Amino acid sequence: MGFGLTDIDHVGIAVDDLETAVELYRRTLGVEPVHRERVPDQGVEEVLFAAGSSFIQLLGALGPDTPVGRSLAARGPGLHHIAYRVTNIEAALQHFREEGARLIDEHPRPGSRNTKIAFIHPTAMAGVLVELVQQGA
Amino acid sequence: MGFGLTDIDHVGIAVDDLETAVELYRRTLGVEPVHRERVPDQGVEEVLFAAGSSFIQLLGALGPDTPVGRSLAARGPGLHHIAYRVTNIEAALQHFREEGARLIDEHPRPGSRNTKIAFIHPTAMAGVLVELVQQGA
Repeated sequence: MGFGLTDIDHVGIAVDDLETAVELYRRTLGVEPVHRERVPDQGVEEVLFAAGSSFIQLLGALGPDTPVGRSLAARGPGLHHIAYRVTNIEAALQHFREEGARLIDEHPRPGSRNTKIAFIHPTAMAGVLVELVQQGA
Repeated sequence: MGFGLTDIDHVGIAVDDLETAVELYRRTLGVEPVHRERVPDQGVEEVLFAAGSSFIQLLGALGPDTPVGRSLAARGPGLHHIAYRVTNIEAALQHFREEGARLIDEHPRPGSRNTKIAFIHPTAMAGVLVELVQQGA
């Protein structure tokens, strides 16, 4: 494939209270936050922990009427999405489009950490919300 | 910490039909299966795809009255659990125990790929089913 899936970039986990969850992850898994960012565009504040070449991403909603806020209301806290790191996100989106997959983002947009990201609709991936991430964009 | 969380070992994804999902992942993400195993003890058949140092794990239920079968009936297909690779699973379980976390497995048991595994109850991890994995056990 021409778009190069290289790693699980991160696993996104929706939490009710971000500070409580950060403390829980520090204490139980022995991991330390490496990045924190508010992403108003996506209605979230995120905290990242490094796990090898991947990240654990805790997601707090900036309000009830946001994607993560609605997910928390409907399904409670838990695994929210999986993000795959690719070397060429434009080529990846084009490939998904050619496969007839339903996209959430027709074009890459800015993510946290100076990345480019795009979401694929869960209906295209057997119920899993998938994000594509290109670093150093 | 003395138990060494080194990587996301895998993300477990519950699917309705394993062969259909394997084809979907090959086609859309351009990944190839690297391992397949029936684990009757856990009521699943699993297919692994490599993604960097981690795996994407597709899980088909061996019947409705299995953990994954019940999860599919209750919540449909989707993200099921996250597994963290640790260097010392006994020490990790002891640490979770000291933190008062509710464990599903009090002691490590054999997993696929000749690993040792143990599950932590979702109530201990803010709604996320967590698995610990030690390789080369």
